[in-house]
Formats: sequence, C-alpha cells, structure tokens
Amino acid sequence: MDMERLKKQFEFIKEIDKEKFIGRQTYLTDAKRKENDAEHAWHMAIMAVLLSEYANEEIDVLKTITMLLIHDIVEIDAGDTYAYDEAGLETQREREEKAADRIFGLLPKDQEKKFRELWEEFEARETKEAKFARTLDNVQPTMLNAASDGKAWSEHGVHISQILKRNERTKEGSEILWNYARENFIEPNVKKGRIKND
Amino acid sequence: MDMERLKKQFEFIKEIDKEKFIGRQTYLTDAKRKENDAEHAWHMAIMAVLLSEYANEEIDVLKTITMLLIHDIVEIDAGDTYAYDEAGLETQREREEKAADRIFGLLPKDQEKKFRELWEEFEARETKEAKFARTLDNVQPTMLNAASDGKAWSEHGVHISQILKRNERTKEGSEILWNYARENFIEPNVKKGRIKND
Repeated sequence: MDMERLKKQFEFIKEIDKEKFIGRQTYLTDAKRKENDAEHAWHMAIMAVLLSEYANEEIDVLKTITMLLIHDIVEIDAGDTYAYDEAGLETQREREEKAADRIFGLLPKDQEKKFRELWEEFEARETKEAKFARTLDNVQPTMLNAASDGKAWSEHGVHISQILKRNERTKEGSEILWNYARENFIEPNVKKGRIKND
Repeated sequence: MDMERLKKQFEFIKEIDKEKFIGRQTYLTDAKRKENDAEHAWHMAIMAVLLSEYANEEIDVLKTITMLLIHDIVEIDAGDTYAYDEAGLETQREREEKAADRIFGLLPKDQEKKFRELWEEFEARETKEAKFARTLDNVQPTMLNAASDGKAWSEHGVHISQILKRNERTKEGSEILWNYARENFIEPNVKKGRIKND
C-alpha cells in the first residue's frame, strides 16, 4: 500500500475545497446569491449526463464530466475572470498556467498529467468533448441569468453583441443546445430590455 | 427535434439549482461557512475519479459519479437530515420518496427512470458502486471536519461511538479509504478532545 500516493491525493482533495470560495458573476435562480465555481461545475456535470444526446458528435461522457468537474480549479489561484472583463482576459492565460502547475502538482504524477491534459484540452477547444463542455459552460449561465430575470446582464449593462461575440463558437459543441439557449434564455431578455440591443 | 423533451430536461436542470441552497452540517476548510449539497456532490465526484483505484471491487466510475452527483437532489424538498438527528432519521425515507417522485418526475420518462433507479441503488447500498459512493459520502465530511479542526464535531458534542456506529459499513466500499479516514481524520481528533471518547 503506497501511503505517499494516497496522502498526495488527499492533499489535492483538501486543497480544491477552496474552489467553493471562488465566486462567479451569475446569480442563482433565487436572484439573491451568486454562484461559486464548485456549484457551477456540479450543475454542468449533471447537464452533461442529461444532454449528451444533443452533442454534434457522439462524446465520451465520463471524459466530458471529468473535464467539467476540474476546469475551474485553476481559479483557486487565478480568480474568476468575468466574460466581459477585457483587461482581466489579457492576463488570464498566464495566471491560470501558474495555478495549474501548483494545484495539479499536488497530485501523484500520473493523475497530475491526466488532469493537466484534460484542462489543457478544455482550454484548446479542439476535441468534441472539449467543444461540448464549452457549450455547457456557456449555456448554463444563460439559463441561470434568464431564471433570475436577467439580473447579472442588467447589472453589467451587457449588450447582445457582446453575448453573441462570446458565443461565436458555442454551437461547435451542440447546435441544438445553443439554439435553445438563444431562443429561450437570451432573446426574450433582449425583448424585455435586460440585455441591451445594439 | 423533440422540443418537449428538451424543455423537460431544462425544467429539471433549473429546479435542481435549489440544491445549492441546502445546507449541510460540515464546515468548509476555512471553518467559517458550512457546505451545501451541490458543493458536497461536486467534491465527491472528483474524489470518485481520483480514488476509484481503492474500491474493494472494480467499479464503473461513470455510474458511481452520476450516483454521487444526484444522490442528494431529494433534499431540495426533504431537507438535509443530520447524521446524528434521530428524530429526523425516522421520517427521512418517506420525505425523500415523495421528493424523488416530484423532482425526478420533471424529467422525460427514460431519464426519470435512470436517475430514480440510481438514487434507489445508492440508498439500498447493495451494489459495488453504491457501496463505494457511500464510502465517499462518509469519508468526505471526516476530511473536512478534520481540516476545520473538528468544529462540527465539537459543536454537536459528537462521541466516537456515534461515528463508529454510523460508519459500521463504510469499509464495504473501500477498506483502504475507511482506514485512512479513521487514522488520519477521526482518531487524531479523539486525542485532541474534539470528538468525545466514550
């Protein structure tokens, strides 16, 4: 029994508890409290189980879920960069690489490699699993924003052009889910003036 | 394209956002805020990926993760029943069955059946996946309780006999993980007086 291995695994498991402290800009459905990264990842993992049938190409569900569960862990050190924070987005990659070195580095080598590669794969958005995971990562907050009467969009004065630009590639994972989000979560909130029409 | 199906799936996805409001008795590692059910499920899903190698029998990891992700959804209606709340434990099953009818009932029939069966399987604790999931469900809070200097144990005046009774079957999923938790998370806190020795 390799106790050193198990100890490292539990060091990582304890460290990632901090993801529960990383706040996002999205309000929960009660429109009172904002979501944190761990809650966001949990929600998307269940979405992956339920909605994988709509992926443009057939995906490996376990791989996609694992990717979704760990994709924000780097934010423990690097913080959450809001989708429309242009200054923050410029330094995001560097901050996140450093965080990945430290946090995934707590794991035994084989598992460090596995998680690091999954995170890089998510970031690169080239495989079908990464594309689908990115679709969920973009669709989930539109669902919550719509459920909370567009509060986050209103507070940030978000324009429809910004949302569409950010979501240029969202359909690459699932045309069906992106169309559904556009028609049911985004467009009604443009009509209601919670998203600025430009 | 069956829009009725997708609409039902999103109704469920929106409804389960409420799991983020269901508080547990376990403190996070900062010992300030308590964990909620969604955070707990996220944490355990990652643990399942990392620690499945220690299961007593080889398990289906995707099935185990899915079980862990959804196992507390019934608490949206039924509330969290604290491990040492004897009155609550008596009515728990009935409250949770009713919740399962309503919440899983939001899904299309095939997915309702899948999730309901996974939840029942977790509850019945007979399959190797359910046994391993239950091991994680018991080990994860001991890890957090130890990391927060035994605060939840102290506040509730928990005795070691209660912990051992509750964990009588925890080793059924993984002897290695239960032994690790006992030696590293529980016993040191008995020595420090945060768990009452009886």
